Amino acid sequence: MPASPAPPTRFTIGLVQMSMSADPAANVAKAIERVNEAAARGAIVVCLPELFRTLYIAQREEHEAFNLAEPVPGPTTQALGAVAREAGIVIIAPLFERRAAGLYHNTAAVIDADGEVRGIYRKMHIPDDPAYYEKFYFTPGDLGFRAYDTRAGRIGTLVCWDQWYPEGARLTALQGANILFYPTAIGWHPAEKATFGPQQLDAWRTIQRGHAIANGCWVAAVNRVGLERLDGQGPGLEFWGHSFVADPFGVVVAEAPADEETVLTAEVDLARVEEVRRNWPFLRDRRTDAYGGIEQRFLGT
Amino acid sequence: MPASPAPPTRFTIGLVQMSMSADPAANVAKAIERVNEAAARGAIVVCLPELFRTLYIAQREEHEAFNLAEPVPGPTTQALGAVAREAGIVIIAPLFERRAAGLYHNTAAVIDADGEVRGIYRKMHIPDDPAYYEKFYFTPGDLGFRAYDTRAGRIGTLVCWDQWYPEGARLTALQGANILFYPTAIGWHPAEKATFGPQQLDAWRTIQRGHAIANGCWVAAVNRVGLERLDGQGPGLEFWGHSFVADPFGVVVAEAPADEETVLTAEVDLARVEEVRRNWPFLRDRRTDAYGGIEQRFLGT
Repeated sequence: MPASPAPPTRFTIGLVQMSMSADPAANVAKAIERVNEAAARGAIVVCLPELFRTLYIAQREEHEAFNLAEPVPGPTTQALGAVAREAGIVIIAPLFERRAAGLYHNTAAVIDADGEVRGIYRKMHIPDDPAYYEKFYFTPGDLGFRAYDTRAGRIGTLVCWDQWYPEGARLTALQGANILFYPTAIGWHPAEKATFGPQQLDAWRTIQRGHAIANGCWVAAVNRVGLERLDGQGPGLEFWGHSFVADPFGVVVAEAPADEETVLTAEVDLARVEEVRRNWPFLRDRRTDAYGGIEQRFLGT
Repeated sequence: MPASPAPPTRFTIGLVQMSMSADPAANVAKAIERVNEAAARGAIVVCLPELFRTLYIAQREEHEAFNLAEPVPGPTTQALGAVAREAGIVIIAPLFERRAAGLYHNTAAVIDADGEVRGIYRKMHIPDDPAYYEKFYFTPGDLGFRAYDTRAGRIGTLVCWDQWYPEGARLTALQGANILFYPTAIGWHPAEKATFGPQQLDAWRTIQRGHAIANGCWVAAVNRVGLERLDGQGPGLEFWGHSFVADPFGVVVAEAPADEETVLTAEVDLARVEEVRRNWPFLRDRRTDAYGGIEQRFLGT
C-alpha cells in the first residue's frame, strides 16, 4: 500500500437513514446504493444504521434469528469493502456478529478506504426493554471504547444504547476521535407515541448534543426509519428517523425527517473542534484525580 | 434534636435569580428577602447564585478582592442559618471561602432546616478565561463530589463550571442525590452576545439537561442576572439569567427570563425519578469494568 496522504481537515460525511425489509440481500443492496449516493455527493465517511442488514430482530426473542448473524469480518464487510475501495471512502457497517456458537455481538465494523476492516467496535451497553430484547441476543462488548485512524482521520463509533452514557462518549473522544458516530435503531412504541414521543425524541437528541459539547467533537447519529412489524404481527416499532449531525458546540447542522429515507450529508470542519475547545477548554480542567467513583455501580448505599 | 421525619417525596424548590451590587451587606439582605419569598411560596430548598455576596470579582485579578472572602461556616452561613431555621427550609449558599491565608475556595454551603451547615462543597473544576480569572482566586476543591441528607432528602450541589463535566453530575447522582443544584455566574461578553450569545446559552442549557437525562435526576441551575462592570469600568459581563429546572428526562419545567430578577419555584416529584429510571434504566447497564480511562487526562497520544 502506498503511504497514506494526511487526512483532510474539512470533508463531508454521509448518514444513511433507511428502512429495512425481511430480505438481508435486498437491505445490503439498498445500503450499497445509498452509500454510493453519499459518496457521489462528496462524503468520505458514510455510516449505516445499527444492524442494517435485517429487520430489528430484538423486537422478539427467537432462537431462529441467530441464523441472521455472520462473522465480522465476513461476507458483508467484504461486499462493503469493495464499495469502500472503489469509492475511496470509509464505511461504518453495523452488523450482527457471530463470534462463535452461542456468542454474538452487536458490532460496528469500520471499513477504511482501502477496503480493509480497520477495526471493530462491539456495543458495550446492551439494553433490554419491551421490544428491545437485546440482552437475549448480544453479549456485551469486550473491546472497550475505541477510535480508529482512517482516510478521514481519527473517528470513533459507538452503537445506539451507548448514546445514553457520557462515559462512552468521553472515552472515545479522549482517544482523539474527532467525530463520534452513533448508528442506531430507536423508535416509538406506536401506542406511546402521542403521549411520550416528542419527549423521547428530544431527550435522545439532547443527550447526544451534550456529548458533542462536553467533548468538543462532532457527533453523528444515524437511525432507521419506518414501522417494522416482524411477520406483520404485533404493534411493531416505529423508528423515528431524525438522524442528525451536531457540531462541537452541540449545534445541529443537518437533520433528517422523522419518516423518510434520507441520505443526509454534512460538512465537518476540524477547525471547529480547535475553535470550540480553545474557547471552552473543558479538557484542560478535568479532575482526573477525583473520578475514581465512576468505576463503581452506585455510591449511595 | 428530635428525630427527623421522613423527607417528603413531592415538594417545591426555589431558585433565586438576582443581580448583585458592590455592597455585600446589601446583597445578603436581598438574598434573605428572596429566600423568604421562595419559602412563602412553599419552597423547602432554596438555592442562591454562585458567590452571591459580591460582584463577580473574577472579572479581574485583584489582590484586594481576597478581603471579600470569609470562613465557611462563618458569618454568612450563620445569618442564613437563622433564616433556614426560622422558615424550616434548606438553603444552598455559595460563598467565597477563606480557608487559610493564601488558600481560598469557591464553595457552596448546604444549610439544613435546623440552621446547621450540613456540609460544604468546594468547586472542583475551576475555569480561567478572559473575565473569568477564577484560577487566580480559587484553589480547586479537595472534598470531591458530594450529596447531603437534608430535610428535603438527599441533594447535591456543584458550582458553575462543573456543569460542563458529565463526571461531576454522575458522581453526585451515584451518591443518591435526587436533585443536582448548579449555582452559577455565567454571562455574555457584551461584544460577543449578538454573534455567539444564543449558541452559548443553548449549549449551557443542553449539557445540563443532558445530565438530568443521563442520571435520571432533577437539575436546577441558578444564575445571576444583569450587567456587572467592576468600578463601572470595562465592557463588563452580562449575566444571562435563564435559571431553570429540568426533570429527570431533561424536560424544562420552569425557566426564568434572561434579564429580570426572579424567584423561580418548581415542584419536584421524586416519583418522576422512579418512573424515568424504570423506563430508561441507564444505571442498570453501566460498564463499570470499562471506565478506568476516565481517570486519564488523554488517551490519544
